Parts: sequence; structure tokens; C-alpha cells
Amino acid sequence: MNTIRERIAQRSLLPGDRLPSVRALAGSMKLSPATVVDAYERLVAEGTIQARPGSGFYVSNAVLQPLTLMKAQTPEARAIDPFWVSRQSLDAAETVLRPGCGWLPPDWMPQAALSRAMRAVARTQTGIMTDYGNSRGSPTLRRLLLSRFSEEGISASPEQVMLTNTGTQALDLICRYLLRNGDTVLIDDPCYFNFQALLKAHQVNLVSVRYTQSGPDPSEFEAVISQHRPRLYITNSALHNPTGATLSPQVAHRVLTLASQHQVTIIEDDIFADFEPEPSPRLAALDGLNQVIRIGSFSKALSASIRCGFIAARQEWIEGLVDLQIATNFGGPSPVAAEIIAHVLTSGGYRKHMEELRRKLAHARQDLGKRLEALGIRPLLRPRGGFYLWCSLPGGVDAAELAQAALAHGIVLAPGNVFSLSQNAANLMRFNVAQMQDKRIDAVLADILTSR
Amino acid sequence: MNTIRERIAQRSLLPGDRLPSVRALAGSMKLSPATVVDAYERLVAEGTIQARPGSGFYVSNAVLQPLTLMKAQTPEARAIDPFWVSRQSLDAAETVLRPGCGWLPPDWMPQAALSRAMRAVARTQTGIMTDYGNSRGSPTLRRLLLSRFSEEGISASPEQVMLTNTGTQALDLICRYLLRNGDTVLIDDPCYFNFQALLKAHQVNLVSVRYTQSGPDPSEFEAVISQHRPRLYITNSALHNPTGATLSPQVAHRVLTLASQHQVTIIEDDIFADFEPEPSPRLAALDGLNQVIRIGSFSKALSASIRCGFIAARQEWIEGLVDLQIATNFGGPSPVAAEIIAHVLTSGGYRKHMEELRRKLAHARQDLGKRLEALGIRPLLRPRGGFYLWCSLPGGVDAAELAQAALAHGIVLAPGNVFSLSQNAANLMRFNVAQMQDKRIDAVLADILTSR
Repeated sequence: MNTIRERIAQRSLLPGDRLPSVRALAGSMKLSPATVVDAYERLVAEGTIQARPGSGFYVSNAVLQPLTLMKAQTPEARAIDPFWVSRQSLDAAETVLRPGCGWLPPDWMPQAALSRAMRAVARTQTGIMTDYGNSRGSPTLRRLLLSRFSEEGISASPEQVMLTNTGTQALDLICRYLLRNGDTVLIDDPCYFNFQALLKAHQVNLVSVRYTQSGPDPSEFEAVISQHRPRLYITNSALHNPTGATLSPQVAHRVLTLASQHQVTIIEDDIFADFEPEPSPRLAALDGLNQVIRIGSFSKALSASIRCGFIAARQEWIEGLVDLQIATNFGGPSPVAAEIIAHVLTSGGYRKHMEELRRKLAHARQDLGKRLEALGIRPLLRPRGGFYLWCSLPGGVDAAELAQAALAHGIVLAPGNVFSLSQNAANLMRFNVAQMQDKRIDAVLADILTSR
Repeated sequence: MNTIRERIAQRSLLPGDRLPSVRALAGSMKLSPATVVDAYERLVAEGTIQARPGSGFYVSNAVLQPLTLMKAQTPEARAIDPFWVSRQSLDAAETVLRPGCGWLPPDWMPQAALSRAMRAVARTQTGIMTDYGNSRGSPTLRRLLLSRFSEEGISASPEQVMLTNTGTQALDLICRYLLRNGDTVLIDDPCYFNFQALLKAHQVNLVSVRYTQSGPDPSEFEAVISQHRPRLYITNSALHNPTGATLSPQVAHRVLTLASQHQVTIIEDDIFADFEPEPSPRLAALDGLNQVIRIGSFSKALSASIRCGFIAARQEWIEGLVDLQIATNFGGPSPVAAEIIAHVLTSGGYRKHMEELRRKLAHARQDLGKRLEALGIRPLLRPRGGFYLWCSLPGGVDAAELAQAALAHGIVLAPGNVFSLSQNAANLMRFNVAQMQDKRIDAVLADILTSR
């Protein structure tokens, strides 16, 4: 059924076209004819194809096959894949524990500062509360970003920065702007699982490079880009997700040189920047926003509800990206959201909030490391900051099976292979240390691991 | 230069490919060889192509040609097209007057109610202020939408509704979900200009149907869909933008029957719904969310800054659209924004605000009608509500020229052809009556019109 649906979706079978005969399809797919007949009958029942007695099966005229990112129709029926973690984490009941999710618990976030900022913005009886605002987004927040960039040694003009709704939307806009169907994109293995989901929506080819504790493996990087000629390389440098690794200066320089030689544009997603104890090397800083595009957001450190992302890039690209954001979203992000964020960032409390967060996270990483050790679960490396531990499970344990079993106990986990294009992380698991405060999780994991 | 850039963008010329010879291109484009040499030299200068002496010109390996929605690089250099109005309206200095824009002035919006709602939400110390929230968006706001739909006679289940960042993003998600490159989409002529900009980003073919005072012309509708077999028809039924026309029951029924016969999915953008004195026929209500998808937002009546759009459609489509929104935006719209909107909608003040707005707009339409009449500018019809008047200019006046001249006086207008795929609205102009309170506009228009 999926094979036929995909051919229709890709327009290689058009409305009115005759389907392969049952015998032919059974032969080519190594299935029994009865299985193919069954699939065809179900496709008839759902209206995708029509049977013409004595003639065969035809693509229904009524069919309009949508872009199917997922094979299963409902989250419940799905295998564990990049969407599984997202939807389980976002949509689970409040009682569900989420060590697999990618954000901090509400009481770790600066709720009081956000509340103060919201009330302050609510008092400004100007267009900020009602108007669309500037097409590049709030000038106040863009100025703050420019001064942050300048601290990092990136000199950017105001015309090189734009705000977006979210960090993910920033990445999506750039992909729409720079990619065409069939282009190739390079990602890290492992990498943030939603990069894969996003690039699937762009219908591009994916290739990956092994991510080591000091960045992408440089010789593999060179081999892959020479062979596959990707248009883009998407990575996060500071506190790499899921490994927590830190890019070394040597690897950063090497990657940038190779990317330059092979005309690969790099998108550096800097979403965990503020969680580092001190800044690590950045591709955007080495390159100066020439072939590197910097993206980021405030979702991890401030709020994922009052959302705002940003892009810093060459001016002519920003110009095109602004047009694209108008066409597809009408205007930039919420002026109110940008104003609230700018208010918190300048309130003086932000630096303190981040210091406190880094301290709490350092304790939580250390504490959880010990608790996991007791279960035979071992972090592959000790991250300098952030909230992830990327761990190996006791010998032979399949992370996806463990995640399925844990879900039955009301616990959402993030199994290794959702992060891995090559699917070589079946024995690994990403844990969010801030979402592991509840000791019931240890008991459930111990139960599942010992009952095997 | 644009021809070569477009061929590269469409990948019909690849990096390393040889360009047509100067002589050949000059011949096929009916240009002098000197012009082609000049264009090639400029392309060499910008790095798009390379000259190899004695051999010719080649596409540079460094070239990565972005999706160009606009030919000119900067808004200032642009001709008047769908983006011109958007960017001028969004980015003009505060002193600029905007009768061409598509929103109400801040003091027409419910600022006090929004401020109260923001302060109320700021007091809730829960995850609403910090978390990503449910992947379909706030359950509170979705329940409110369901009861509105039910009042209109549309029975939808909670699984058939999702929230989005904006109404435009709702449309964009659906287009990504249902369209492929090269598909054909039907729009009204005239229609909201950003539909054209959005569909350009989707690289689809556009066809249009003449919009009359009672909806799309039914016989033209039938002819166009039989001939071009569009996948989608995008329209707004209530208070059609820019004409202010109202769909009649007969046309609604006819359009729906024809669309059903030809398997055309309809997107009904209901953004001006609350501005009608009483509800007019809706395709979604007749059809019951089978082949019609309803979209909308709160940007026009409540706030374009605290933004939220929505989609109501078949459940299986919503399921796929939620995946696509996760992949491209990570999660739904801001929970805080949805909560503030829900608060205003249920506060009791909303109904009063809309009654007041409709009353003010009725007066403004009447008043402006007279003022325009004095300038020889005549509304083509008298809309039942809303803030647009779609007007003919005195004989022979070109709306784009008038718009350019007015811009020099700090006034942004919306000339007819930005709304018209067939470009047959050169003599028409859309006026936003709420943005015409300043009488200086009449004086400037009179000056320009008489000095011709």
C-alpha cells in the first residue's frame, strides 16, 4: 500500500494510470499474489485506486496524495522514528515523565522574569501589541543580537540579521531558499532528530558524517563532501545535540577549509550557546558569515512558548529570506514575543538565571551519571554543559525496545537511532538530566533491564 | 543576467556547465552581442559564472543560486508587485500613511482587552509561559473554535482542528502537504496579493477565475478547471479581498459541485469572517470539511502581533499537517499567544468590540466613499462589511504610477495589478478605509491626479 501511495505522491503514477498487474507486482516485490490483492483491495476501499473488472486497477481520479512524512497514519501505530519522540514528548499527558524530551521543566525556566516582562509589555499601549511589525522583526531584539555577535567576534550589520518564529523555522526558510528537490545535504551522525524530519519534508538526499568528541570526523567529512557534493552542511557546534561534544579549534578550521574548497554552505545552529560554561569555537566566528549561516533561538534558555528564532547571514541572502518569510508566514515573528524576550535579556536577571541554570545542570549531570552507572548505563563523554547525556545501554539492550517498554510505564525516552541516519545507535540513549529528577524513572528502567 | 540565473536556479544549468555562446544567446534572445557580453561580464564579476579564455563561459562551481522570488535585490529597486505592498506597508517609517495596508490602526484594536488578557496569562505560573505545548496547539482555543464552527453548522471533531502560527502559515502548510512542483492552482482574479507570492515560493502554475460581485464566475470556473485540472482552489468567501464581494448561495453550490466533479480541493480562507454584519454562505459549511479546508486567524480583528492561525480539515490531513508543522516549525503556535486570544474571546468584551468595529467601519466606508467620489475615484461595489473599497480611478490613470507618486509623499497605496494574475486591474486601487482618516491623503491624491 505504501509503495503505491508513494508512487502516486511522487507523480510517477498519475490519476487514471493503470497499476502494475497483481502478478507483476508480487514478482517484483517478492510478495505472494494474495498479499498484493489484499493491498489493492484496501487501496480501493480507501478510494486511492479503482478496480475496473476485466481490465485491472487504476489510480483513482479523486486521488490527491499528500506529502507523507510518516508511513503510519497515527502516532500510536508508528514505529520509533524522529517524529515519535517529538509527538510523544509534546502531546503526552501531564503525568507522563519525559527524560527523552529536549527542554527544561517549567520551574527551571525564568518564569518570574518572563511574567514581569509580559506585564511591562502589556502596559505599552502602542502598535507592539497589535501590529505585524517590521518584516525583519523587532529592531530592539536585533540590536541585542548584534552586540552579542560582536562579543563573539562576528561583526554583522543590522541588514544581516532577521528574526523568525522559531529556530526550526529559521532552518526551514534557509532550506527552502537554498535547496531544490534532489539536492544533497550533509548532517552529523548522530544529530538532532528533527533535522532529518525537516529535510524529509524538503525531499532532499541525506548523507552523514560521524560526529566525534571534537566535532565531525575531518577525513570522513572530506571524503563525503568530495563524493556527494552536498549543498549544505547542518550542524550544531556548541554542546552538540545529542552527544554534548564540543567542536575543537583544529576541527573547526579544517571543516571550514574543506567546506570552502567544495563550496558547501554551513548552517550553524547555536541553540545551546548560552549553556556553555565558556564559549567554544564557532564556525560563524572563524568564517565571518561568509559561507556560514548562524541560526538560534531562545526556546531552551528562556521560553519555548514566547518564541523567537533568528538568522544571521550574508545581506543578500537575508533580503531573499525576508521575502520568503513574508510569502509563507506574512511578516516576521510576533513583535510582542520579541519585546518580552528583549526585556528579559536586558533586565539584568538573565545572566544570573543562566549562571544558576549551568550550576544546577552541572549537578544534575553528575548526579544522574552516578544513578545511570548503577543501571549499567554509561555516558559516552562528559559534556561541558547542557542537559543531555548520550549513553550506551548495558550490552545487547535495544534502545527502541526499552523506549517502547518505558512508554507503557508513562515515560518518554529518546532512543539512539532516531538521531542516527546510519542507524548505528541502536544501543544508545539520550537522557535529559533536568527531566530525570523523579526517581521512579530509575526503578522503571531497572525493572525493564532486569526482566529481560 | 536573470535568464542565466534562473536556468541555474532551476538546475537546467549545473555548476561546470558551459553557457550558450554569446552569438547564440544574442540570437535567441534578440539582443545585441554587446549586451550579452556585458551581462556575462557582470555575472563573472558577481561570481556566478567563470570565463575560460579561448573556451567560453562556464557556471561557477561556487554558485548556489537561491530561490529568487523577486528579480530586484532591494525593495527600493523593485517594480510594483505583490511584495512591494507588503514590504512598504510593514517597513515604512512611522510617519508614513498606509491606506494600502491590510490591517486596522492600533487604536481600532482591543488594546485594553489584550493588555488585561496578557496580564492574566502572566500570572499563571505554569508551563504555558515556558513550554512548547501540544502539537495541535492550545486545547482551550481549539474548543472555542469548535463551538464557533458548530454555530456555523460545521460539525468538526477536536481531531479535525489544529492551530498554526499565522493564517498565511496555515495556507503554506497545506500547500506543502498537497502540492508538488508543477501542479496547478486556481486563484481568484483579483485576489489577496500574497496568495500569488506564496504560490510562487511553491513553484506551481497559477490559473485564475474572474471574481464577480457574487463569487467566482461559475462558467469560467468550470472552463478553467476542466482545462487546467488544478489540484487546489484558494479563495476567501466572506468579504472577499480586495473586492469586498459576498459569495451567493447559488454560486457557492455551483462551485462546490464543479470542484467535487473535478476533484479540486478548496481552501477557504475565512480571515474576515467576524467583520460581516451577518454570516454569508460558506463553502466549508455546505461541504462539511470533506473537500473544503477552512483556514483563518485572529490577526485582523484582535492582534497581528499576538498571532495565531488555524486549520479545520479532514482528520487524516490534520494528522499529516501536524507532522509537517513539527518538522518545519517544531510544534504549534505559541501557547501564550493562544491563551491570550482565548482569554479575549471569552471575556465578553469581544462581541462588543466587533460590534463597535463594524459600526465604525460602516461609517468610514460611507465617509470615504464620498471623499473618493470628489476625486473621481469610484468603488466598484458597496461591501457589506470589512475595511476595503475596491475602486476605479479616473479614466486613464495608472494605479501603479499613482502608487509610486504617492510613496514620494509618504503614502503607501495598493494598486490593482498586485491583486490580478491577468494584470487587468491597472486602473483599480484598493483602499483601506480605516487607514484613510488623515485628510492629507485626499490632498496628495488630488494633487497627483490634477497634475497629470
